[in-house]
Amino acid sequence: MARLTAPILRRSLSTSTSTSFFRGVFPIMATPFKPDESLDLDGFHKAVRFMADAGADGCTIVGVLGESNRMTDAERESLIKTAVAAVADAGRPFPICVGTSHAGTAATVALSQMARDLGASAVMVTPNKEPTPSSDETLVEMYKRVAAGCPGLPIVLQDHPASTQVHMSPKLVATIANEVPEVTCIKLEALPTPARIAALRQLWSTSLPTANPECTILTGLGALYGGFDMEQGTEGFMTGFAFPEILKAMNAAAQAKDFERAHAIYQRFLPLIVFEQQPGVAVRKELYRLRGLIESGHVRHPAPPKAAPALAKALKEQLERSFPGVDVTKPLPPELFS
Amino acid sequence: MARLTAPILRRSLSTSTSTSFFRGVFPIMATPFKPDESLDLDGFHKAVRFMADAGADGCTIVGVLGESNRMTDAERESLIKTAVAAVADAGRPFPICVGTSHAGTAATVALSQMARDLGASAVMVTPNKEPTPSSDETLVEMYKRVAAGCPGLPIVLQDHPASTQVHMSPKLVATIANEVPEVTCIKLEALPTPARIAALRQLWSTSLPTANPECTILTGLGALYGGFDMEQGTEGFMTGFAFPEILKAMNAAAQAKDFERAHAIYQRFLPLIVFEQQPGVAVRKELYRLRGLIESGHVRHPAPPKAAPALAKALKEQLERSFPGVDVTKPLPPELFS
Amino acid sequence: MARLTAPILRRSLSTSTSTSFFRGVFPIMATPFKPDESLDLDGFHKAVRFMADAGADGCTIVGVLGESNRMTDAERESLIKTAVAAVADAGRPFPICVGTSHAGTAATVALSQMARDLGASAVMVTPNKEPTPSSDETLVEMYKRVAAGCPGLPIVLQDHPASTQVHMSPKLVATIANEVPEVTCIKLEALPTPARIAALRQLWSTSLPTANPECTILTGLGALYGGFDMEQGTEGFMTGFAFPEILKAMNAAAQAKDFERAHAIYQRFLPLIVFEQQPGVAVRKELYRLRGLIESGHVRHPAPPKAAPALAKALKEQLERSFPGVDVTKPLPPELFS
Amino acid sequence: MARLTAPILRRSLSTSTSTSFFRGVFPIMATPFKPDESLDLDGFHKAVRFMADAGADGCTIVGVLGESNRMTDAERESLIKTAVAAVADAGRPFPICVGTSHAGTAATVALSQMARDLGASAVMVTPNKEPTPSSDETLVEMYKRVAAGCPGLPIVLQDHPASTQVHMSPKLVATIANEVPEVTCIKLEALPTPARIAALRQLWSTSLPTANPECTILTGLGALYGGFDMEQGTEGFMTGFAFPEILKAMNAAAQAKDFERAHAIYQRFLPLIVFEQQPGVAVRKELYRLRGLIESGHVRHPAPPKAAPALAKALKEQLERSFPGVDVTKPLPPELFS
Repeated sequence: MARLTAPILRRSLSTSTSTSFFRGVFPIMATPFKPDESLDLDGFHKAVRFMADAGADGCTIVGVLGESNRMTDAERESLIKTAVAAVADAGRPFPICVGTSHAGTAATVALSQMARDLGASAVMVTPNKEPTPSSDETLVEMYKRVAAGCPGLPIVLQDHPASTQVHMSPKLVATIANEVPEVTCIKLEALPTPARIAALRQLWSTSLPTANPECTILTGLGALYGGFDMEQGTEGFMTGFAFPEILKAMNAAAQAKDFERAHAIYQRFLPLIVFEQQPGVAVRKELYRLRGLIESGHVRHPAPPKAAPALAKALKEQLERSFPGVDVTKPLPPELFS
Repeated sequence: MARLTAPILRRSLSTSTSTSFFRGVFPIMATPFKPDESLDLDGFHKAVRFMADAGADGCTIVGVLGESNRMTDAERESLIKTAVAAVADAGRPFPICVGTSHAGTAATVALSQMARDLGASAVMVTPNKEPTPSSDETLVEMYKRVAAGCPGLPIVLQDHPASTQVHMSPKLVATIANEVPEVTCIKLEALPTPARIAALRQLWSTSLPTANPECTILTGLGALYGGFDMEQGTEGFMTGFAFPEILKAMNAAAQAKDFERAHAIYQRFLPLIVFEQQPGVAVRKELYRLRGLIESGHVRHPAPPKAAPALAKALKEQLERSFPGVDVTKPLPPELFS
Repeated sequence: MARLTAPILRRSLSTSTSTSFFRGVFPIMATPFKPDESLDLDGFHKAVRFMADAGADGCTIVGVLGESNRMTDAERESLIKTAVAAVADAGRPFPICVGTSHAGTAATVALSQMARDLGASAVMVTPNKEPTPSSDETLVEMYKRVAAGCPGLPIVLQDHPASTQVHMSPKLVATIANEVPEVTCIKLEALPTPARIAALRQLWSTSLPTANPECTILTGLGALYGGFDMEQGTEGFMTGFAFPEILKAMNAAAQAKDFERAHAIYQRFLPLIVFEQQPGVAVRKELYRLRGLIESGHVRHPAPPKAAPALAKALKEQLERSFPGVDVTKPLPPELFS
Repeated sequence: MARLTAPILRRSLSTSTSTSFFRGVFPIMATPFKPDESLDLDGFHKAVRFMADAGADGCTIVGVLGESNRMTDAERESLIKTAVAAVADAGRPFPICVGTSHAGTAATVALSQMARDLGASAVMVTPNKEPTPSSDETLVEMYKRVAAGCPGLPIVLQDHPASTQVHMSPKLVATIANEVPEVTCIKLEALPTPARIAALRQLWSTSLPTANPECTILTGLGALYGGFDMEQGTEGFMTGFAFPEILKAMNAAAQAKDFERAHAIYQRFLPLIVFEQQPGVAVRKELYRLRGLIESGHVRHPAPPKAAPALAKALKEQLERSFPGVDVTKPLPPELFS
């Protein structure tokens, strides 16, 4: 398959795959559209940069929340370029991870190469869905091909059956991480997540160690089960929740083994987390809008273009309940969580 | 279709359908099994009675959480008899609602007649799923047939696409409630619930009023969105959460329009609510077990027989976090929520 | 779990499971309903007996085509009794196989015991479907439990992903047949069937021999791929096609290794086979009606009650095209296929 | 959304949409890949031209059979250019229709504009699938947007629930054709097709006439139900069956109202039709290969790369059975069907 783009210099953040930079908080970025559904690249630039300024450790673009399934390849290219440029002068490494899942493995490879060539630091890949479920061997092969097409490029294995309808056993996930050193992070979103994390940790410590000993596990699903995932041993969050500051505070407590403190923060903001992870991208984009990250929360057709009024109103009220007297359009000060 | 049982006297709680008794808190009961998977009828009797003693307003048996899909009709009969007997001397009316959903409409009618004849006060019915989605007309007709088979018996319309894979528009739900007076309650579990409740209320107040003006809306889904559903106008809860006392306190505040208080209770117990509603019946049964309601949390094959150890441990810890120093095996005292 | 029925003497057709009687043609019976949807037991008696008189080698009742998913357990009981009685004086052994698939394994066991106790000769069981696909181990265990509950009772393993949404690998099917001697027949309906039969035969002859060396493979899916299945080594048909005489002639030729003759018969009647296997039970029941097997082709709600007029007309015309001048209400004479 | 390509002159085959050119036989083209999965554009050029030489009336590329779901946009572009060039000197108008279905409406518009700008004569569009089924209004709007983005460009509405999981009522299909004049053809693949065609014809002749009176209905599904679809009033075939000559002969007879002759041809080749339409693209590509249209039948990962040996062998044998002594690598002579 021909390359989608001319190769440009990759701004590599890690010179080898032996250390995973997937630790901490990686927001999954929504893609802002103008009301006519065209890309709002200025808004996207601003939103990505906000995450860096708010203390996130990197971000993931063009994922499910980013409405990647409703984009042309040319639009993917524009978004990657914009995100890479947005953090070029962030003053610290800020890895851009790009969702490159596709129904075809060769296309995933091509999209991953495009991301790499445009300066992305990693790609996120879900197992592809076939009318008859693929064998375990086929899914292992899929990740091997992505790695072979982009040697050394870190891969986030996203295990999210709710959107992929692909149900992988913990053993299969461990096998992929065992055979493909490029897999340096598991975005674990198969229910029930605490039990799955425990099962994966068990396999990693016994029969199926990771090829890359630095492979991490990050919590997704809007952080809904974050409090319980942390206890099982996660290295942070990769999810669309619009307040990385909260997740950062939770994760800092968890990494310091202060789980009671982590649970206290979790409980405090759980109503907002619960509300925000309701199905439909519109609620999440509305929260982005309320944070001032994007101008319009418009979602592309055929999805409903915006959150229902009842949801928008309830979200605004919950925001006030969660952050009384706080200006949420600015990065939240650390003392808020002390 | 022949009756499944000889008719016996129905202990009617309402002499007409003009008043819905579906207000307050109606736990959805798990079905206790012994480790050999046989019914634990003594345990079921005890659990149902506990709910009455804990202040619930009724309960629903043989639903999804009750593993009704893994039962013979004879077992359904035993469970209904046991539940009706358990509350016969409760000292107040305590309606037993019975899940009678079935892939065939005639079978739903037959199961509903059996429930009625055994003393149940109401039935809960989901729209039945066909390989090609049924037309709206077909689903309206389905509820009409249930009502025609059991005239005057209150019907709870359960709208739970996650388990039924039947997606009904708010307009269709309103149409059914408009054409079938026996529908006196909507168990609303289609996402996003706050928007769906608002849409239904709007239809009820304009073009499609309910045939039964007392028709209520109850929150399900383990109360996950309970805080936000209340604001849109619900009359209570019908869900499997093992602490009806908490839901009762939330609902009391909400009915008194004290939403800040309702939200405070919601937030306080939300970690437990979130944990408990994870997919799989096993976690919920384990919580039942920890409350002392049932002896064994065994789930029937082909489901995993019990909650994974990591989940059981996390649940126990959360329980201690939510109820420090409280004996949860007894009905919780009201002062706990003051 | 308590037995559903009092045990009565089982009319055992095989004193051991070492010989499979699943060779030849086993029609899957539709269940006739009266226009009010009640069971037409007289019609069912007549239809079952017709199959015996037409030369079938047994039949299967209460399967998908029999609308088993729309029945109460009591109705299943009536149908089994009727079928067993219908062939009691057939003058030769005519095994009645009963579909006992259920979402719960214990219920499958209970339904299987009921079938056995009422005189059925075998049961047909599909793997049960869970929201998260069951592991291979769980499905093997399921069949083991059915066998343990009914020792020695032959089991037909029905592999029909189109209705079950359970996708089993050939290796899993072979493993079940390897570990459960009661599995004496595979009703193979996973696409593409010729390749699956070849894969299964390969496994049986090498790494995973059947526990019961007499285990057979029968073609289903309305015989749509019958011509090609035969070549891969099948022992006959178990399907709802209303003309067992045609399948008998095809199978006789195939067993005699006269595949050209088998293909000629296949080609001759293929338009009818294609038409009849269109989704929806109604077309099949209409064909039953045209053969005079049942009085009404009524299908239970929520399915459409009868075949669309365009289909009924086209079916009638095809019948005349396939059988010019033949009275199809009588068993077809063998010379028709010579 | 920015155009994907610079606009070039469109080789318009019809100066208005008032006449549908979708009459006759339109093969759906497979996409040939080399064993390394790269596009075989030479092979594609040859295969498209073969269809023109064999008497087809046009062809459709980049559809489901063409593995469009496993392609990058750049590959789509190459294929369209190749197909348009292949028929530039065919000596007669030979419309190239391009599949442009996409999960996002805006992307469907962009892909359709690209197809138009590259010289395609029409586009084929399926309704897009959302996690919660879209309302009828949303799907009508989707087609309106495609038409608005490409005014005057004929649209084939493909109704194929088996691949889209979108179930449209006949009324919805008729409504789209009623409101969007660009819809000049329905590729009708919703089961049961004869009844659906009858229902659509009925709506067209009564309450919901087409905006474009020339709108046609073509049979798909590998022509499986072709014999019965013709009787209900179709104008031809748009499907992947590798022998357009057969479909042409059938359609010629049907258009002349000689249905007995049409049925005779249908019956004669039905075993081949049945075999070829088995799920999986591999069998169809193998048949392409046996016809000499492509060099390799390789299918892209994660699909199995080729047809199982048992299928390949059976296909070869059936080909010999269907065409004794005929060289199928050349267009079949008309006398073969006389």
